[in-house]
Amino acid sequence: MSDLHWVLTDVSRRLWRENFAVGVSPETKLAGSDQWSVQKFTLRGGVSDGVDVVEVNNGRFSVSLLPTRGMGLWRGTCDGLEVGWRSPVQFPVHPAFVNAHDRGGIGWLSGFNEWLCRCGLDSNGPPTAEGTLHGRIANIPANYVDVSISTAGAGTITVSGVVDETTMFGACLRLKTTLRTTAGSNQITVIDEITNLAGTERDLELLYHTNVGGPFLEAGSRFVAPVKTVAPRDAAAVPGVDRYQQYAGPVTGYAEQVYYFDLAADKNGRTQTMLVNAAGNHGLSLAYNTRQLPCFALWKNTQALADGYCTGLEPATNFPNRKDFERQQGRVIRLPPGGTHTAAMDLAVHSTAASVQTVEQEIAALQAGHSAQVFSQPRPEWSPV
Amino acid sequence: MSDLHWVLTDVSRRLWRENFAVGVSPETKLAGSDQWSVQKFTLRGGVSDGVDVVEVNNGRFSVSLLPTRGMGLWRGTCDGLEVGWRSPVQFPVHPAFVNAHDRGGIGWLSGFNEWLCRCGLDSNGPPTAEGTLHGRIANIPANYVDVSISTAGAGTITVSGVVDETTMFGACLRLKTTLRTTAGSNQITVIDEITNLAGTERDLELLYHTNVGGPFLEAGSRFVAPVKTVAPRDAAAVPGVDRYQQYAGPVTGYAEQVYYFDLAADKNGRTQTMLVNAAGNHGLSLAYNTRQLPCFALWKNTQALADGYCTGLEPATNFPNRKDFERQQGRVIRLPPGGTHTAAMDLAVHSTAASVQTVEQEIAALQAGHSAQVFSQPRPEWSPV
Amino acid sequence: MSDLHWVLTDVSRRLWRENFAVGVSPETKLAGSDQWSVQKFTLRGGVSDGVDVVEVNNGRFSVSLLPTRGMGLWRGTCDGLEVGWRSPVQFPVHPAFVNAHDRGGIGWLSGFNEWLCRCGLDSNGPPTAEGTLHGRIANIPANYVDVSISTAGAGTITVSGVVDETTMFGACLRLKTTLRTTAGSNQITVIDEITNLAGTERDLELLYHTNVGGPFLEAGSRFVAPVKTVAPRDAAAVPGVDRYQQYAGPVTGYAEQVYYFDLAADKNGRTQTMLVNAAGNHGLSLAYNTRQLPCFALWKNTQALADGYCTGLEPATNFPNRKDFERQQGRVIRLPPGGTHTAAMDLAVHSTAASVQTVEQEIAALQAGHSAQVFSQPRPEWSPV
Repeated sequence: MSDLHWVLTDVSRRLWRENFAVGVSPETKLAGSDQWSVQKFTLRGGVSDGVDVVEVNNGRFSVSLLPTRGMGLWRGTCDGLEVGWRSPVQFPVHPAFVNAHDRGGIGWLSGFNEWLCRCGLDSNGPPTAEGTLHGRIANIPANYVDVSISTAGAGTITVSGVVDETTMFGACLRLKTTLRTTAGSNQITVIDEITNLAGTERDLELLYHTNVGGPFLEAGSRFVAPVKTVAPRDAAAVPGVDRYQQYAGPVTGYAEQVYYFDLAADKNGRTQTMLVNAAGNHGLSLAYNTRQLPCFALWKNTQALADGYCTGLEPATNFPNRKDFERQQGRVIRLPPGGTHTAAMDLAVHSTAASVQTVEQEIAALQAGHSAQVFSQPRPEWSPV
Repeated sequence: MSDLHWVLTDVSRRLWRENFAVGVSPETKLAGSDQWSVQKFTLRGGVSDGVDVVEVNNGRFSVSLLPTRGMGLWRGTCDGLEVGWRSPVQFPVHPAFVNAHDRGGIGWLSGFNEWLCRCGLDSNGPPTAEGTLHGRIANIPANYVDVSISTAGAGTITVSGVVDETTMFGACLRLKTTLRTTAGSNQITVIDEITNLAGTERDLELLYHTNVGGPFLEAGSRFVAPVKTVAPRDAAAVPGVDRYQQYAGPVTGYAEQVYYFDLAADKNGRTQTMLVNAAGNHGLSLAYNTRQLPCFALWKNTQALADGYCTGLEPATNFPNRKDFERQQGRVIRLPPGGTHTAAMDLAVHSTAASVQTVEQEIAALQAGHSAQVFSQPRPEWSPV
Repeated sequence: MSDLHWVLTDVSRRLWRENFAVGVSPETKLAGSDQWSVQKFTLRGGVSDGVDVVEVNNGRFSVSLLPTRGMGLWRGTCDGLEVGWRSPVQFPVHPAFVNAHDRGGIGWLSGFNEWLCRCGLDSNGPPTAEGTLHGRIANIPANYVDVSISTAGAGTITVSGVVDETTMFGACLRLKTTLRTTAGSNQITVIDEITNLAGTERDLELLYHTNVGGPFLEAGSRFVAPVKTVAPRDAAAVPGVDRYQQYAGPVTGYAEQVYYFDLAADKNGRTQTMLVNAAGNHGLSLAYNTRQLPCFALWKNTQALADGYCTGLEPATNFPNRKDFERQQGRVIRLPPGGTHTAAMDLAVHSTAASVQTVEQEIAALQAGHSAQVFSQPRPEWSPV
């Protein structure tokens, strides 16, 4: 057993690897797979010019990380199934080409195409005087990135990154994110630690915009989760509340519907959610801790394929409303100086009916004892009037 | 006869050539010239850092394309005559250094120095809630660029590029532009195809900001075109309407005057325009199809040389007014899903009186049968009150 | 005796050195030190990706210049003492990652961590319709950078740069900046020439945001200057006016206090200012000409270390108020076409009590004959109501 470690980026020490690749070798055998690899390259040309990509492949599940875009997860593949979606924004966009102030503060959308991107950290809601749509973190490059391999057990691959959302007289939040996966597994784990580097208390709003299209999303797909309470975000979502779990196929001109949830969890706070395809043999599950991420938003955006057919499973510290409303409702975290908020999640791909059913049973067990309360109208404590 | 083809940039396939050069060789002889060449390099330093330049030289006419700036044409030279102008913005500006929201939404002007740059594609007018001045396309890099050589006939050089102006929940327009020139000729042809990639109808506004200074522009230069109707854009242009065709030399403190036109065309829609110097032996002509580009604006900006002495010949799909006004007047194109709007133009340099006279005759023939109607005041259907 | 010269960047001639280093050699012996060096490198990764750094070391005083950030002085070291401060913004920030329009026009603060950065050139005050906080110049890269060595006398090292703040229909100001230092000395000289490239008169506002933290700033540090008049900028600064010269240690939650000054000078206009530590053996002095820079602001920002404990000694052409107010008060410079405004300053580190005392005596001599007039309230001609 041995551990290996490579630093790809460290601005503080002027370390930088233009390219990097590691895989199976006599020193780096992982019991779980002999097909694993990690590589790093930089995209050139177009709006992707200068975007770093780290591709982690555990031999079964491959995922592309974007250090230049706040360590977001661009897309993945597991058991031959694509994970992610087809945004109208085709390539990863360097933050230099995203002007957050476009179109009244929703310019963030011109860089939006990841499977998983973070919204926050100072604010994660709509544009206000306090910030532009979904905040800054997805458009800040990591100043530190490293890769580690552990040969213990089946073997583990880890990629870590540090992204600082800091400014004089404002947010001073450090995101340390760790992506970990076991060789040959169908799962990746993301662990985020957000620390307040300032000398005084600071706000934290964090939301995981986890976006999925086909083959998990299709007509007849279902969202499965242990629901205590669900409510439409706004009037536009009211008509669909009775079928919030069901998905339509691509509908030209479909207007997004968003539902807010309080999910059940086990005694440790762990909950499980999943998007399942119509046949019930393709599932993408997302497990996390409701003490770390008490809120959950379901973004249903079953527009035409060309317009970005997808759905978002979005665990968060708060609902993505105006920050003043969230503050009023007590959902904005106040981090003390040096204080850290941790959030972790397991993202797993299920490529057989049996694997899907295991997760369904897990969710059923979490649901047991809770009857889902479905509000037909927005809740005043969740949605501003 | 043979055809050769090189891809310089293709983000989708991770193809990228840092440098490229091709010219006369045993395999690449063009009958029209033995001095032709194409080269690509990247500027470094200043606000130009990272700007790609493709220089196409047909052996007589040389032009610099800027893939990083929406495939704009920076400047050219033909028969020893400079084509372009001297903007106060000296070098090509990387979009990372242009903040469109500066100065109330006119930040676009801090990157403006091309001979030909496109305004659009979602909007091309003044800053409004719908967009900043002249839109985004001139500040979006091409994600695909290629070069082709055909040895047929005199030999043809072609450079193509693809620029995507896309965002989630917004514009999804793809510009495919082709610059083509015959070896040894005094002309280049630009063919643009703009396609709506979205699943629903989208707006298109396209204007070619074609800007010319000396030696074509000087005191006594004339604008020649087959005019059906001309009107001042606004009150500032009213005093100059009777001499809209004539140009002054550089005048310190000159305030721009803009005229809007309906031009005559032949039975296929083709029209011809030209800027001619005082002596009548230097002309820059711009021919295009009025069915593709029904509107034309003449921008007279004969300020001091240091302030950007130039004039703009601007064929367009619409007049560069507020988009809501253009929409009201029915001049905003609605592209159906997958629909394409094509616009082509021939840009030619005339370095002798004889060559200039040929174009003058062509324009006179188009004018025949139309008496130019000159409005002394702005037309309510062309200019918002 | 000989002179040597290297061009590091010249966009107009397509010259660029990715890396550069020069130091002692048979041809480059400087009498003042055999430890001098100049090197240039480019930072990679994080928000520093693409930031050029030029490190000038005269053998005693080392300073890092940032061509990519308007030729600002990032930080330095002299006699083992760090010069600069610890901003919450850790690394030099490439302008592509600074959106000046963030947070109502104060986005400039997300790139702010230099020892010396310029505010201006068209405006240097708070955000208004005329410009964002502190203007554009600190976020514009130099299009020309060179290094010169003269072996005359003790030997001189010079780094020059050109930064253009230009736009069509707006500011057309060229900053030519020269940093000069004698081998083995405790001093650097900065000479700035700002030229109006336009054909008509243009505004100029220039402020040197010179920021200092420990070891010069600590509880008991003093600001020493020959004061004719001092007044609080605003109500927040009123309570501290009687102790404007004294500094507290880091105070969590401290709100900045700013004082405006009219300083005394010798018959040539030269004045001297200094920040001295509590023991009186560490001093950082800043001498300049009040005819070039008639205004002076003292920014006291003794917040917690983590929040950017520092003070700013800020000589300027004007006070950093709204530009319309400064214009009203006659403090906005109007540069004629081709006109140049020059400003120079000597920055020196004093690492012994004796060296500190020499500067104190120099300041005392300038103070002689002037009794400092201390206004307890903001002056209406210096601060807008």
